[in-house]
Amino acid sequence: MFGLMQDWPLTVDKILDHAKNWHSQREVVTRSVEGPIVRTTYGEIHERAKKVSNALLAWGVKPGDRIATLAWNTARHIEAWYGIMGIGSVCHTLNPRLFPEQLIYIINHAEDRIIFVDLTFVPLLEAILPHCPTVERVVVMTDEWTMPATKLPRAECYEAVINEASADVTWGQFDENTACGLCYTSGTTGNPKGVLYSHRSNFLHTLVTLQATIMAATPNETVLPIVPMFHANAWGIAFSGPAAGAKLVMPGAKMDGASVYELLETEGVTFSAAVPTVWQGLLAHLRENNLKLSTVKRVLIGGSAVPESLIRGFNDEFGIEVMQGWGMTETSPVGTLSNMTPELAALPFEEQLKWRTKQGTPPLGVELKIKNVAGQDLPHDGHTYGRLMVKGPTIAGGYYRSDEKILDHEGFFDTGDVSTVDEYGFMQITDRAKDVIKSGGEWISSIEIENIAVGHPKVELAAVIGAAHPKWDERPVLVIKLKPGQSEDKQEHLDFLQGKIAKWWMPDDVVFVDDIPLGATGKVDKKLIRERMKDYRLPTAA
Amino acid sequence: MFGLMQDWPLTVDKILDHAKNWHSQREVVTRSVEGPIVRTTYGEIHERAKKVSNALLAWGVKPGDRIATLAWNTARHIEAWYGIMGIGSVCHTLNPRLFPEQLIYIINHAEDRIIFVDLTFVPLLEAILPHCPTVERVVVMTDEWTMPATKLPRAECYEAVINEASADVTWGQFDENTACGLCYTSGTTGNPKGVLYSHRSNFLHTLVTLQATIMAATPNETVLPIVPMFHANAWGIAFSGPAAGAKLVMPGAKMDGASVYELLETEGVTFSAAVPTVWQGLLAHLRENNLKLSTVKRVLIGGSAVPESLIRGFNDEFGIEVMQGWGMTETSPVGTLSNMTPELAALPFEEQLKWRTKQGTPPLGVELKIKNVAGQDLPHDGHTYGRLMVKGPTIAGGYYRSDEKILDHEGFFDTGDVSTVDEYGFMQITDRAKDVIKSGGEWISSIEIENIAVGHPKVELAAVIGAAHPKWDERPVLVIKLKPGQSEDKQEHLDFLQGKIAKWWMPDDVVFVDDIPLGATGKVDKKLIRERMKDYRLPTAA
Repeated sequence: MFGLMQDWPLTVDKILDHAKNWHSQREVVTRSVEGPIVRTTYGEIHERAKKVSNALLAWGVKPGDRIATLAWNTARHIEAWYGIMGIGSVCHTLNPRLFPEQLIYIINHAEDRIIFVDLTFVPLLEAILPHCPTVERVVVMTDEWTMPATKLPRAECYEAVINEASADVTWGQFDENTACGLCYTSGTTGNPKGVLYSHRSNFLHTLVTLQATIMAATPNETVLPIVPMFHANAWGIAFSGPAAGAKLVMPGAKMDGASVYELLETEGVTFSAAVPTVWQGLLAHLRENNLKLSTVKRVLIGGSAVPESLIRGFNDEFGIEVMQGWGMTETSPVGTLSNMTPELAALPFEEQLKWRTKQGTPPLGVELKIKNVAGQDLPHDGHTYGRLMVKGPTIAGGYYRSDEKILDHEGFFDTGDVSTVDEYGFMQITDRAKDVIKSGGEWISSIEIENIAVGHPKVELAAVIGAAHPKWDERPVLVIKLKPGQSEDKQEHLDFLQGKIAKWWMPDDVVFVDDIPLGATGKVDKKLIRERMKDYRLPTAA
Repeated sequence: MFGLMQDWPLTVDKILDHAKNWHSQREVVTRSVEGPIVRTTYGEIHERAKKVSNALLAWGVKPGDRIATLAWNTARHIEAWYGIMGIGSVCHTLNPRLFPEQLIYIINHAEDRIIFVDLTFVPLLEAILPHCPTVERVVVMTDEWTMPATKLPRAECYEAVINEASADVTWGQFDENTACGLCYTSGTTGNPKGVLYSHRSNFLHTLVTLQATIMAATPNETVLPIVPMFHANAWGIAFSGPAAGAKLVMPGAKMDGASVYELLETEGVTFSAAVPTVWQGLLAHLRENNLKLSTVKRVLIGGSAVPESLIRGFNDEFGIEVMQGWGMTETSPVGTLSNMTPELAALPFEEQLKWRTKQGTPPLGVELKIKNVAGQDLPHDGHTYGRLMVKGPTIAGGYYRSDEKILDHEGFFDTGDVSTVDEYGFMQITDRAKDVIKSGGEWISSIEIENIAVGHPKVELAAVIGAAHPKWDERPVLVIKLKPGQSEDKQEHLDFLQGKIAKWWMPDDVVFVDDIPLGATGKVDKKLIRERMKDYRLPTAA
């Protein structure tokens, strides 16, 4: 027997409709790509997004067509995003930090028909577009008077398009499982893979993230999503902001410490989200200039493990709560959050750090397990390592145009991460399955050692990789990029680790490098480090 | 084209699974019907709910069968609730405050097979059960040593049933639109009507209500749902509590001021929800005994309009934020909440009261309109009255075993309320459509006058009804129940209204009565007042 409640498909156009109906005057402030800080409202964004839809329809866009964006976080990007999704076409967010050949692969794989592009990326697009035969048209997201002379074929000026289009268009009215967004994983192995979000999955993710323990967006919050919309949907903030009627502040192209600081203070930001490297840049700027933050209450940090020094810095120097989150493109992305329970919150802050440096617990809607290689569930004891497996309505069930089976027999997705879960339910990523160092039949977490090593005052970046060893199979090597002007001394970094990790985890060597490469999402690119060090031999392996 | 996210049906068994997996040790504290305060956890509730499921299966319960509860808010009620829903049968919450003949009608209409009953209601059930032929079995929710001698046929003792049952049973695995709960509206006109909730509607309602602007339940909150589970699902708290891992405090049978105060203080309650009469009882108790509340931060008040005096009392004397909510059985029930926007929060508290006394704005997932009799949308100007219409996945689309069409051509449900919406989007119920007083072609809100009249220090309860008038069609009459020992003086109550309402709204008469009847959900029963006063004639109509 079915219930008798209304049939109301969960489609994301209703999110922007809600913002227009109930939070019409709430501001969205953007540091524009052209330079000035510009202001609009959800009411105006709704109107202009409808115009985008009409322009797309006039160009022959059909439901299911992929329409790409190559753009920073701006109000225009939000307009294009809803304009594309509202008519049932698919918003494909391109990550400009990818290598050109990866972008070409992705655009061709997705068969994008139209690309919305920021001024910044016009040269990049000019270079790659000759290799992308499916792209019929490019829309440069700028004003008519700033429209560049470009070699791009069929280049439209966004504001000219908006000026000419009608806002009279019907959104939604389709199945809630209709595809809505497409985002490729940066693909450290093999080709990038496309995660194809549905309206339902994004709507549910929005509700999940609005909880007080996650984004807690409300009309009384001002939210700065520094994490880009091309990085797992800005962790959902382009949905949760309008859903809650929160004021949004969009950072455009500038994510350096000084620019972020300016927006935080002038716009009264209360909540912001970004990867650790952005926050490290902000903290450095604050310290160098002896500045304080007057309105920020909480920051959400994710994308890679959060160093203890960062949590400590925000808390001790600025009185700001750090929430660590874990997720991936395949999880929409929220997977877990490190919210203190009442039991943990009652501990002194120093003791809380043990849990604050973990990735935390899942919200309702995310099922999470650790399993051994035989597929058996592992205990929540805080030290047993297992493959991290997740399941839920916001988790990928397959990749776009791929036959790969990515769920196990229980319907769980293998994250590729290795983690523990403790007796409080706190999950901690100990490593990527491919980065974990296999030494004498046991696993050593490269990430745990890195997080400690980077706390040494002379260290700018650290990476730990496994090097071949005749007896132990692999042994850890600590790779360090020093801060400018610091001198190399292997022993002091080993001494720094002493007592903080198990003896048998102690790296067999320290290697100083001029550069530690970061991947397209700002994480240390260990694949490239391993390539660069392919001729390296352990001194202990002689 | 469909998205490629996982198929994960939204069924409510997953809510209690989540609580077991991640908040297993979080307490649920109950003032038991037998007397003592008893303590359990989500982990134990999960185990025992599974045992309820197995008992039901052993008794031949099939998916879709209606299983009733006639019970207070207790941990056992939560166990029965999930035990029933988890196997796809329908939990039918009976309201013990209904007249026996209404209960008989409802049980027969629902064709309940089994009834879970609290000790309190065994005599009531003994009286009505001979008239309820579909009921095969009764489960008395008590221990073996407190099991009463009863005339009830096939009466089981709840704890004996639990002791014998296995906890090994599979929940869920059915379509998310499967029926899950049944609740009859108290039916001021005609027979009661059954709202048949689905797993999907209750799961979505749970996510909607977990927002920071609504319940904001988290593991750090202790929530006391005084509103009964038979009153629109305790406003969803039996779902949102376990979903968030919040500590729950269940008041059992005692909702008087002293009992509520004891639980608030001894259990460290931070958030509670109830109808205005409960809060008025609590405030009276606090004032009489010169008490303070040390942990409560926010209270949610709904079920009927919240008098300004109550909002003021909580704020001024106790520093507690009152959130007013509006909803109905047909809306799961959350419809709107009176959250202050930043613009309103910036006003002095006295000025905020204009909005705090309104019912507020809808969350994402509730579409809301006011329409005139011709079905046209009315403006958000704060003074135009219209029929309040709602739409969404948590709103009823029809009644159980009824062919009545309850949605308009746009899919909106007519709430039967008359309301305004102002320029901030704040909805205010001005009256029930059937209670509004039609005077000279215009509408007078009975509720607005009542809310002011009840603020007079001598008044205990007030009601305004329309009385026939030869010229104006109807004119308002103020019906007053004085506090004990107060003397009757019509003019002082009219003087009290002077300047606070429009001149033409001024009641034509004041009538003092010994009793103002309350209906089954604690609201003033105007239908009964009108019946009692059917021979009344206006002095002005002579």
